[in-house]
Amino acid sequence: MAQQNIYNNEVFFEGYKKIRDNKINANNLFEIPALFSMMPDLKDKKVLDLGCGFGEHCKRFIDCGAKKVVGIDISEKMLDIAGNENSDPNIVYINMPMEKIVELNEKFDVVVSSLALHYVEDFEELVNDIYNILYTEGVFIFSQENPLCTCHSGGNRWTRDEKGNKIHLNLADYGIEGERESVWFVDNVKKYHRTFSTIINTLINAGFTIEKMIEPLPTDKILEQYPDYKDLLHKPDFLLLKVRK
Amino acid sequence: MAQQNIYNNEVFFEGYKKIRDNKINANNLFEIPALFSMMPDLKDKKVLDLGCGFGEHCKRFIDCGAKKVVGIDISEKMLDIAGNENSDPNIVYINMPMEKIVELNEKFDVVVSSLALHYVEDFEELVNDIYNILYTEGVFIFSQENPLCTCHSGGNRWTRDEKGNKIHLNLADYGIEGERESVWFVDNVKKYHRTFSTIINTLINAGFTIEKMIEPLPTDKILEQYPDYKDLLHKPDFLLLKVRK
Repeated sequence: MAQQNIYNNEVFFEGYKKIRDNKINANNLFEIPALFSMMPDLKDKKVLDLGCGFGEHCKRFIDCGAKKVVGIDISEKMLDIAGNENSDPNIVYINMPMEKIVELNEKFDVVVSSLALHYVEDFEELVNDIYNILYTEGVFIFSQENPLCTCHSGGNRWTRDEKGNKIHLNLADYGIEGERESVWFVDNVKKYHRTFSTIINTLINAGFTIEKMIEPLPTDKILEQYPDYKDLLHKPDFLLLKVRK
Repeated sequence: MAQQNIYNNEVFFEGYKKIRDNKINANNLFEIPALFSMMPDLKDKKVLDLGCGFGEHCKRFIDCGAKKVVGIDISEKMLDIAGNENSDPNIVYINMPMEKIVELNEKFDVVVSSLALHYVEDFEELVNDIYNILYTEGVFIFSQENPLCTCHSGGNRWTRDEKGNKIHLNLADYGIEGERESVWFVDNVKKYHRTFSTIINTLINAGFTIEKMIEPLPTDKILEQYPDYKDLLHKPDFLLLKVRK
């Protein structure tokens, strides 16, 4: 299968860059704090970032003491920005799909992936590859769209009241795994839905021990500042897992 | 907190008995096969069944070679039937809430609970108690209502088309944990909603290793025979976990 590369598409890229440039977004408020809350001490560690995008996380891993960071991404356009904005003598950016990480021929202490795994068709194969390139006791930490999001396969995602408030999520096809097409700046963005249990069992079957699972929810303090995020109480946007070899 | 004892209520009891007497139900088709698929070899093992009800599982554990089974339940009416229909010299039925298992003052190789834990308010305390009464390497296997069910807090659970077919689940308040009141034969059945991540993290924090998670879904063969169960593809009814000390 040819890996999808929407992040190289001009329209997608500009739309995506715009929401990432806005500092108040769900990534900054929920996903990134949850991801870093699970991070082990990175001092002198070797870190691999799968789908590193603009390289912000790679830079932060170096700031946390990592001795070497490899960031891979399928989008050259993303990596151009990473090289300009987040370069460091101890970061290597490589333009490759994460389905080919065995070709790196290198072992790591920590593998991280932020919001990229729902684009991967063969989760089992990838998880096995990650297990193999980790040192013993190494950790794999990732975020992805919550399965309550990835299951969506068209139609209205929400039912709203007459004022436009979200009353409930229209949840369908949670039990039907596989490809979903969605629109996100451009048509035909392909994602892959897996249930909570498939994700958990795939990790366990590869040999990993589950250490923590997070579905980030807004605190009272965040709701006070950004009341729109109350919708997350109906359905968290993200799922994060920390597992150990 | 006083443990809720709906299973002693006459109306509830008769309604419940009726669906359990019907052999074609979601328990027999999905929950029980999934539960037993996770069971270790019970030969010469000591088993504790939390919320044993009519004792069918207790009897089956003996048939599988268990040397001793303790079945506890808060409903005397249930245990009367268990004593009549599923007695065995190596089964002891005790009328007690599962919140008091430490008072058994006994250790077990396997702790099982079938569709009872969503009635328990303090999941963390119970999980810690279960950990403590298990021998090292002992397993805890349980089923409960899926979090996509327990989160429901009133109103229509489903949106249907004009023919009455379920189009989607009306999912709300998944991120709001705690008590829910529902109607199941009688009013005010109290259940407790916990997210997938709370359930997983509570088990891990108690010291357990997650070994398997199942959200049973209908196979093509079951759908051919019982097409009504296609609704489970929108939302599985059950969640099962196997964890090891």
